[in-house]
Amino acid sequence: MSAPAQDPVEDLTQKAKEIFLDDEGKPITKSAYKKLQKDKEKAERKAATAAKIAAEKAQREANNVDFSSDRYGKLPMNQSQTRTDTKYEDIDTINASREGETVTMRVRVQTSRATGGKMCFFVFRQNVSTIQGIITADEKTISKQMVKYCVGITPESIVLVQGKIVKPVEEVKSCTISDAELSIEKIHVVSEVNVRLAFSLEDATRPESSYEDQENQLARVNLDTRLNNRVLDLRTTTNHAIFRLQSAVGLLFREFLSERGFMEIHTPKLIGAASEGGSNVFKVSYFKTSAYLAQSPQLYKQMCIASDFGRVFEIAPVFRAEDSNTHRHMTEFMGLDMEMAFNEHYHEVLEVLEELFVYILTNLKARYQNEIDVVKKQYEFEDFEFLPKTLRLTFAEGIKMLREAGVEVDDFEDLSTANEKFLGKLVKEKYHTDFYVLDKFPLAVRPFYTMPDPNNPGYSNSYDFFWRGEEILSGAQRIHDPEFLTERAKEHGVDISTIQPYIDAFKIGAPPHAGGGIGLERVVMFYLGLGNIRRSSLFPRDPKRLEP
Amino acid sequence: MSAPAQDPVEDLTQKAKEIFLDDEGKPITKSAYKKLQKDKEKAERKAATAAKIAAEKAQREANNVDFSSDRYGKLPMNQSQTRTDTKYEDIDTINASREGETVTMRVRVQTSRATGGKMCFFVFRQNVSTIQGIITADEKTISKQMVKYCVGITPESIVLVQGKIVKPVEEVKSCTISDAELSIEKIHVVSEVNVRLAFSLEDATRPESSYEDQENQLARVNLDTRLNNRVLDLRTTTNHAIFRLQSAVGLLFREFLSERGFMEIHTPKLIGAASEGGSNVFKVSYFKTSAYLAQSPQLYKQMCIASDFGRVFEIAPVFRAEDSNTHRHMTEFMGLDMEMAFNEHYHEVLEVLEELFVYILTNLKARYQNEIDVVKKQYEFEDFEFLPKTLRLTFAEGIKMLREAGVEVDDFEDLSTANEKFLGKLVKEKYHTDFYVLDKFPLAVRPFYTMPDPNNPGYSNSYDFFWRGEEILSGAQRIHDPEFLTERAKEHGVDISTIQPYIDAFKIGAPPHAGGGIGLERVVMFYLGLGNIRRSSLFPRDPKRLEP
Repeated sequence: MSAPAQDPVEDLTQKAKEIFLDDEGKPITKSAYKKLQKDKEKAERKAATAAKIAAEKAQREANNVDFSSDRYGKLPMNQSQTRTDTKYEDIDTINASREGETVTMRVRVQTSRATGGKMCFFVFRQNVSTIQGIITADEKTISKQMVKYCVGITPESIVLVQGKIVKPVEEVKSCTISDAELSIEKIHVVSEVNVRLAFSLEDATRPESSYEDQENQLARVNLDTRLNNRVLDLRTTTNHAIFRLQSAVGLLFREFLSERGFMEIHTPKLIGAASEGGSNVFKVSYFKTSAYLAQSPQLYKQMCIASDFGRVFEIAPVFRAEDSNTHRHMTEFMGLDMEMAFNEHYHEVLEVLEELFVYILTNLKARYQNEIDVVKKQYEFEDFEFLPKTLRLTFAEGIKMLREAGVEVDDFEDLSTANEKFLGKLVKEKYHTDFYVLDKFPLAVRPFYTMPDPNNPGYSNSYDFFWRGEEILSGAQRIHDPEFLTERAKEHGVDISTIQPYIDAFKIGAPPHAGGGIGLERVVMFYLGLGNIRRSSLFPRDPKRLEP
Repeated sequence: MSAPAQDPVEDLTQKAKEIFLDDEGKPITKSAYKKLQKDKEKAERKAATAAKIAAEKAQREANNVDFSSDRYGKLPMNQSQTRTDTKYEDIDTINASREGETVTMRVRVQTSRATGGKMCFFVFRQNVSTIQGIITADEKTISKQMVKYCVGITPESIVLVQGKIVKPVEEVKSCTISDAELSIEKIHVVSEVNVRLAFSLEDATRPESSYEDQENQLARVNLDTRLNNRVLDLRTTTNHAIFRLQSAVGLLFREFLSERGFMEIHTPKLIGAASEGGSNVFKVSYFKTSAYLAQSPQLYKQMCIASDFGRVFEIAPVFRAEDSNTHRHMTEFMGLDMEMAFNEHYHEVLEVLEELFVYILTNLKARYQNEIDVVKKQYEFEDFEFLPKTLRLTFAEGIKMLREAGVEVDDFEDLSTANEKFLGKLVKEKYHTDFYVLDKFPLAVRPFYTMPDPNNPGYSNSYDFFWRGEEILSGAQRIHDPEFLTERAKEHGVDISTIQPYIDAFKIGAPPHAGGGIGLERVVMFYLGLGNIRRSSLFPRDPKRLEP
């Protein structure tokens, strides 16, 4: 029914003849004929358009029969509606030997990358493990719509994915699982990300050294941005490793001491008076009066010794109202504290502490090498060197080493941070260890409850532990005699009324004892060369940060 | 040379003869003779007196040569002067099979009792162990002076004692070591008690039942006196056992969860805003602004789940500014918290929690029966009954049981403490267990972040654990969808700005998760039937107590 193409020559011929017929062959006027012709063309154009639309619709409908529609999409909010017997796999159990198996896993989408509209590559993540996922459109199971949906899944969304384990064409260097990948058969979004991420996890996990080359022009995620978006930042494989190691240090501390008859205690953080000096203490509104936050469990752990618990430890937050904005100060941190009655000499306690640290160092290496390696990729640091029998120097010997290296130092002054670090360097060069102990500190630089050395006037029965040239533990024999303790407290200008219950504890008899306190975040920071203590605290607190 | 006895008859005869001779036989007058005689008598008396004095002096000197002087006395304050190879023994290693061995131990003097000036009996104590010590004066090694010194040693002083292990004449019922005692050879005071003790440890350790008989007229040490003198009070064998058990609960909690891939976390106690409602929160002066003390690690442990840590636990103090002066409230207590991402159903988490409690109950019994028995002597309680597979009832089933027992209760109201206890009694009668779980609490009585039950309107995916009819754990599936969470928070009247970092954590994707929180002191208190939570806290804090 389509109109024949008008031949302009023929047209002219018709005009010459001047005979015009309608569709039924009857003669009509030229103008009527022209109108008729126009109407016919119009109708034909309309029909053609309709046909085109119909054809397109048919084509669309044919395409829209999405044979994959039950294989992808967003799941309703999980309210524990149902429970199946599905086995959920962990990424780190997947390897080439399981080729051909179909597995289900819930993973975080770290990155996705579309290629040519028919394929999409994923990096899926669980903790410190990543695996590649691939989806390719085909004629029967994976529709183009499904691939398009995959491309649209935002990074950091959580998906439930089912797929077949396949061997990749070549080693997947960008993932921790390199000899296997997942050919995706089903993918459903469990939890969606609809906001713009403050940074990508790729940027947040980049090795520090990659910024050294100025030409790279890489986006550096600075520490404040990380801490402002800490939940996102904590998802990096590096942070997962750091906090597994932090957890491990606490576990090893406890394991070692529990096996040696130490009892875990929990002492109050709310205290009635600002003891231990009082200047760096937080004040709390306490009903109609005031309380203070404990700066350490020092006095209470000693009171437990006076209660005959003999060997105690505590893992608890300590609070310091110091307005210090440095790389190694926080207002709240975790104290690993221990205290122990001894029979004859405080070196009995010092030996336990030295063995404890060798135990921690040995077992971090033995059980957590994978986590150490993960952190090392981002924060390049040298392996931690230590001796099976810990090097112990006296403070005086330390001073002598510094002097021999040309440093001017006073006999009875405390070491400055710079001198501590320099001494650490000298010790490392001479003894090849990143861990050593300084014993017999000058009495004047230690707290009032420190026992003086009976043999060397001006010195005390106290010690510090150093890792990579920085102090991580401070400890001493404590004064257990109430009269002498009172005398020393007065000499230090301590208001006795603020520590009365502590003094009283020794009036009813106490054994000689010693102990020490460790800053957990410092231990982790120095071990892993993190450079800033905030990197080893989940949600760090400093004078300027109370959130998140 | 003593004067012969004067015979009065002979004397009269001499008078009759009237002849008087001096010592050389020369005649003298009667009066001269009489004087001579008197002088002689006087000299003889004098000599006798001198002899007597000399003899007494010799005797005294002979007595005063104290052949035991190096066997007793007060030691100088221990400043770690020396170190020997002496082995120090523990009381609980002593028994009859070691008869004849000489041992050295450092012990607390619990009591001493003199008998007849030549003997002294001691009860020596270390932690929960006691042994009898005896010292008897003899001619060669133990002087009467030494025994006298022993009698003067004040209770609670610490002594270093050396002695021979001997078998007692009859079983020593008053000590934990009943088949052996110590025959003291040396005793030196290490730390002396010079103050009057607030109470004796004997009084402080008396079984509660002994007060029931009014006629006993026993001195009862009330709780406030104990807490005011807590260091002394903590020395009782009962308290040593209580706090070993408290330590054990934490250890078992950690042990179970660590083995199941849970990671220990440390979240901040200083927070920027009064979240979670805000009325019961302590305010802290924080440099130029204010901070608050965390009422629980709830929001932060969930944020760790949003950071993909998957399975986390924390053992840390929590702070509640509730002005409640009851037997089961404190302003500071230890929270044992866990949180876990699940795959399909929150019952995956509930099962872990149930198994955790069965693990704790099983191992307390298996490893700490001695401590349980020690506490039971003072606070008589029934053995804790529990099932290998924990009884789980729905809240609605609990309500039904109460109604059937004649209690009027509303379907959607929270259980009163009285009804909780009564339901515990009904459950114990019917199911013979002191531990059960109530699941599916009414939504209205739970915090805003609790996930509603999709199948039963008005209920929620939440649960409480009960021990001896009192709540010890509260937990739930949490809302992981940020829009729904915001909606629910608003419905609860929570100021969204105070929980913004928490809401934001879910905007970047979070898996479904559930968890729970346990009050450590409650667990210990209900398990041991202590009747007051202050008895299971080393240094309890309540609205009226901040010391010691």
